[in-house]
Amino acid sequence: MPSVSKRGEQTPLSPFRKLIPIADRVKAAGKKVYHLNIGQPDIESPAAAMAAVRATDTKILAYSPAEGNASYRQKLVGYYKKFDIDLEPEHIMVTTGGSEAIQFMFLSCLDKGDEVIIPEPFYANYNGFAHIGDIKIKPITSTIDTGFALPDPEAFEAIIGPRTKAIFITNPNNPTGCFYPKEALKQLASIVKKHDLFLFVDEVYREFCYDDQEFFSALNLLDIQENVVVIDSISKRYSACGARIGAIVTYNQQVRDAASRFAKLRLSPPGLAQIFAEATLDVEENYLSNVKEEYDNRRQTVYRRLQAMPGVTSYKPGGAFYCFAQFPIDDADAFCQWLLEEFELDGATVMLSPGQGFYATPGLGHNEVRIAYVLNTTDLEAAMDCLEEALISYPGRVDNAVEALTVN
Amino acid sequence: MPSVSKRGEQTPLSPFRKLIPIADRVKAAGKKVYHLNIGQPDIESPAAAMAAVRATDTKILAYSPAEGNASYRQKLVGYYKKFDIDLEPEHIMVTTGGSEAIQFMFLSCLDKGDEVIIPEPFYANYNGFAHIGDIKIKPITSTIDTGFALPDPEAFEAIIGPRTKAIFITNPNNPTGCFYPKEALKQLASIVKKHDLFLFVDEVYREFCYDDQEFFSALNLLDIQENVVVIDSISKRYSACGARIGAIVTYNQQVRDAASRFAKLRLSPPGLAQIFAEATLDVEENYLSNVKEEYDNRRQTVYRRLQAMPGVTSYKPGGAFYCFAQFPIDDADAFCQWLLEEFELDGATVMLSPGQGFYATPGLGHNEVRIAYVLNTTDLEAAMDCLEEALISYPGRVDNAVEALTVN
Repeated sequence: MPSVSKRGEQTPLSPFRKLIPIADRVKAAGKKVYHLNIGQPDIESPAAAMAAVRATDTKILAYSPAEGNASYRQKLVGYYKKFDIDLEPEHIMVTTGGSEAIQFMFLSCLDKGDEVIIPEPFYANYNGFAHIGDIKIKPITSTIDTGFALPDPEAFEAIIGPRTKAIFITNPNNPTGCFYPKEALKQLASIVKKHDLFLFVDEVYREFCYDDQEFFSALNLLDIQENVVVIDSISKRYSACGARIGAIVTYNQQVRDAASRFAKLRLSPPGLAQIFAEATLDVEENYLSNVKEEYDNRRQTVYRRLQAMPGVTSYKPGGAFYCFAQFPIDDADAFCQWLLEEFELDGATVMLSPGQGFYATPGLGHNEVRIAYVLNTTDLEAAMDCLEEALISYPGRVDNAVEALTVN
Repeated sequence: MPSVSKRGEQTPLSPFRKLIPIADRVKAAGKKVYHLNIGQPDIESPAAAMAAVRATDTKILAYSPAEGNASYRQKLVGYYKKFDIDLEPEHIMVTTGGSEAIQFMFLSCLDKGDEVIIPEPFYANYNGFAHIGDIKIKPITSTIDTGFALPDPEAFEAIIGPRTKAIFITNPNNPTGCFYPKEALKQLASIVKKHDLFLFVDEVYREFCYDDQEFFSALNLLDIQENVVVIDSISKRYSACGARIGAIVTYNQQVRDAASRFAKLRLSPPGLAQIFAEATLDVEENYLSNVKEEYDNRRQTVYRRLQAMPGVTSYKPGGAFYCFAQFPIDDADAFCQWLLEEFELDGATVMLSPGQGFYATPGLGHNEVRIAYVLNTTDLEAAMDCLEEALISYPGRVDNAVEALTVN
């Protein structure tokens, strides 16, 4: 029997993936599991967009253009305009989810052995796409004492080397929920310009910025317009993770030309989902404002509950729907597994993402977890009840491991 | 401005891709273009499957499992059973089109620098997926005098080297329409076994075998069951190229485990399309038999018309919906471009795929084209009228370039 590839065996998985079979098993045995481990919201997709799918009179599900349907790209121009981003349809390439957009961006901009600097903790699947492209991720550590704010420019400059081609940030951030303001982006822009790098920004959570903070897109860094490549997706804002519609947005024609080659190779993004995606652009504004308000309530709930847990370090995340908290535990992998296998409160437990997998630097994140507040506040309160009780009874509790600290 | 990657610039395009802007231009100027360049049929997708999409009451377009919906995989078992293929749902991984299946298969089975042997001419996008994975394609030339039959086992053995990990065939074939019978596959199996290789088979056209030939799946090569990886897609059989639903099918658990890592990385295949795909499995049998009969009529039309064209070498393809013909021309790229830009018959012309791009060996295919008989017979006759006339008036006609020959 021929052996599979090394790269197949070595492709990294998401931090919570190995917990899924365990979760499935305990659920089958009757335990209720509150899933705060994955960015899959319980919020309904816009009814009007689903109605557009039901109303389709398409007779032949034909290939769409590789770059996406012209009508959808045209309407996306209006969507970005709301964020003061001036685009032509040609600047937007529709992709099969944000995931494919990341892959196309990496392959289009970086050759084998090239480096991309990413503040850690970062969205763990970036590792996998870098692995496919034989790209090296150079991490730059952000820390909980600043609420995982963007590291100082000096820290970036210190690790820029001859093979460094790009800086990649997620704003607002997954997994930390940190919101990077305009000033932070401007600082980054000066580094990018000085060293002639690409600036990749994953902006899929741009709708979810709280406390009246105003989102500032990297596409509006006019001074480095040709350096910026933005990743987008409808998954989070329209609670449509399963549609698989994302986008690459860039003013840089060379990047678009390269990405277009990869897009043509896979022929087209999904067709039915493009009907849905185009219809989201006609959804009433209050859909998004209601969703944001709902997430804000959840955010307050998580923040309030974490603050009240002895030994837990937390902060109030400024965006997205994640919080990255520090627990008085020995090992986050072990703790998350124990939560599923050993713990229950009134027949329920909570599933979280262990922190280690979000770091590229070995040894970091062992006492941290990502909490995705994707459940309604009633379920979230119940999940926090579980967590509070679990942290008390966890045999691996280590009270002196971290100083209790609440920032922000 | 930072420069894009070399691999982005070097990713090969489909043979007809550079002709698309020209086709768009002449169509905008009023010329009718018969598209025989792409495998996009004019046949309607099954109405019952579209009705299932319209009937969906999904409220949240959530991620599906990375390997595809359990209900769909379960029903696919019954589909394969019709071809005497015995599978469990776990043997089937749902992918975003056959394209993604090819990419996952390559990445899962081959490391950088590994080689895959493919009979040429072959589906040109295999080049691109090999390029992404840094995989070397070793071509083995099949020729028109045998109707592009599978080369002899000795020819395969002659080019197997230490880095050869797989043989990859398309059955029935795109671009040649050649059907490989059971005996040919058995011969291949013995080579695969002897050298412990993978056998990759793209079977997306398995429904379209003509002249009462019986399709034999590589999954039924029981002697090499662990070596076989099959690529599938609903695009062609259900005229649903835009759905983007394919599959990897293999008994080899290690391959499935590796492919599953890549699948998890991109989270899930498209959700709405899976509703469509699952519903295709309830479509009445006569949908497929009618479609096959229609393609058979088109096949006869193309064959009859090509035979009557002086200087054209053709054969009767046994499967799929392609024919790869040899023309009395100097250069297929130039001819296909001339057809669009310079030629017209009653305001119309025909678009074909030039042959060169289907070969990995330089210099081959310069007087060959792929004809996709994806239009109804009325349009097909009109397209053949154009072609017949064009071959007479083409300034680059080279009558002595090939011996007029009709095989099969």
